[in-house]
Amino acid sequence: MKTSDLENNAVKQIDIIRVKDSEAWSFTDDVSVEEPLEIRVLYGDAGKRESKNISVTMRTPGNDIELAVGFLFTEGIIYNYQQIEGGKHLNADCSRTQENVVMVSLIEGFIPQLMKSDRNFYTTSSCGVCGKGSIESIRTVSSFKDRDQEPILLDIEVLYQLPDRLRSFQNNFSSTGGIHASGLFTVQGDLLALREDVGRHNALDKLIGYSLSVGLLPLDHKILVLSGRASFELIQKAAMAGISVVAAIGAPSSLAVDLAKEFDMTLIGFLKENRLNVYHKGSNHNFKTIKASI
Amino acid sequence: MKTSDLENNAVKQIDIIRVKDSEAWSFTDDVSVEEPLEIRVLYGDAGKRESKNISVTMRTPGNDIELAVGFLFTEGIIYNYQQIEGGKHLNADCSRTQENVVMVSLIEGFIPQLMKSDRNFYTTSSCGVCGKGSIESIRTVSSFKDRDQEPILLDIEVLYQLPDRLRSFQNNFSSTGGIHASGLFTVQGDLLALREDVGRHNALDKLIGYSLSVGLLPLDHKILVLSGRASFELIQKAAMAGISVVAAIGAPSSLAVDLAKEFDMTLIGFLKENRLNVYHKGSNHNFKTIKASI
Repeated sequence: MKTSDLENNAVKQIDIIRVKDSEAWSFTDDVSVEEPLEIRVLYGDAGKRESKNISVTMRTPGNDIELAVGFLFTEGIIYNYQQIEGGKHLNADCSRTQENVVMVSLIEGFIPQLMKSDRNFYTTSSCGVCGKGSIESIRTVSSFKDRDQEPILLDIEVLYQLPDRLRSFQNNFSSTGGIHASGLFTVQGDLLALREDVGRHNALDKLIGYSLSVGLLPLDHKILVLSGRASFELIQKAAMAGISVVAAIGAPSSLAVDLAKEFDMTLIGFLKENRLNVYHKGSNHNFKTIKASI
Repeated sequence: MKTSDLENNAVKQIDIIRVKDSEAWSFTDDVSVEEPLEIRVLYGDAGKRESKNISVTMRTPGNDIELAVGFLFTEGIIYNYQQIEGGKHLNADCSRTQENVVMVSLIEGFIPQLMKSDRNFYTTSSCGVCGKGSIESIRTVSSFKDRDQEPILLDIEVLYQLPDRLRSFQNNFSSTGGIHASGLFTVQGDLLALREDVGRHNALDKLIGYSLSVGLLPLDHKILVLSGRASFELIQKAAMAGISVVAAIGAPSSLAVDLAKEFDMTLIGFLKENRLNVYHKGSNHNFKTIKASI
């Protein structure tokens, strides 16, 4: 079991005024740290290596290399972990934490299609400006498209326990109330890994970056639990990692449901301790301990 | 009072399986629509007008022109509404809704600094990869920096009512449970405008685009209420619009607090019906109906 490695600077204590009813008092509160992270790649053959700034994201410090690797993978810039030579922080003298730039070195001979990083897939797909085009562009670059899904028997009683389990493993939620989590669970409900971030897409990129680095991909016999809502961007990243069951504590969007159908994923929303909604059921997935046949 | 003009296609009905305890049944549920919107600008002198794709954002259809105008303003690409000649949807044949591209025409003679749109301010500031650099770059382009704040007396009892008021005016939250809102209120608690979107930054850009178009800026004697968390990006947009009081129902991030301090904004978090936290109090803002002196 691997939980989040958020660093000591992931939470910051600040002095606030707390007000209840008509009384106010001073209070020292924890807030989640948000800082920019610049992701750069170094690529090309020996002697003519080039560096390119790929993205700046506002993230919570911690698991930065995983975040960068996950981002490169879910954006379709790299296809496997073997294309990575290494990753490290660069010193940016200006930075308060000096930890806000990560350089990922790619192996010699691999030239990434860096154009793909121009704000996700949308601008490079033949028709990126409709939901259908966005979905098709993911299909084009996904390593795990058109796989036969392994059969999975999902236990409702296990699913009901996942929100509590996610929260109990979250390092920072209880102190700040303001951080997203992505958790990877077995079908039996055991936590494999959890990552946190102020940005929900970053929490998932960290989780996928970790999973890629330890050889867990494709994540097709696991359950991804999202602490908040399921937007298109999150399901896109899940699809890129071969995740076939996503359970969100919040609501999904229309395009998230469309994408789940297209990739034959099971998508659950509004997961609580005794209820859930199934927005799409993967054709090889079934539920046990439910009376009605679904 | 102007509420959201989300279109009929902002909500989509889909067939789901609802599960409670160990029973399951079919159900028709509403989900919030998420579709890409491409924002383009047309600029230059007569006879040599050029078009440039500025951004693609995943948004809920409705108030698209306001979203585009608000985005251009909060990103520092335009400085006032007079720089805009008009805005319209273009037909994208591929699109299911055919409403996923907006072109904003700028007046002749005004050449925007389009480089600023490369993923927010970060990449163009002299040092964008630390929180301090991010804040300084906003100060550089903000039209409303270093103003003298008008005195505001904030009534706690009014603040406590704002979350309920926001929700009661939300068109779509109750049906989908999955849409963010930004609401603009007077100090007396009256709603001036509300906008909704699956993306919280889009909801705020729509609100600011509307406010800009009707001549409300700077919004320095108003209260901005955010349905969720207050990240750096939201406070950045608020600062660009001259908003001086922000009340979020969720948690703020560290950089959001830093930015509120830098711009002398009042930033409230965890706003509920009988409690709130004050993360920063503007120097010319005060609270009434609180026993302790803060």
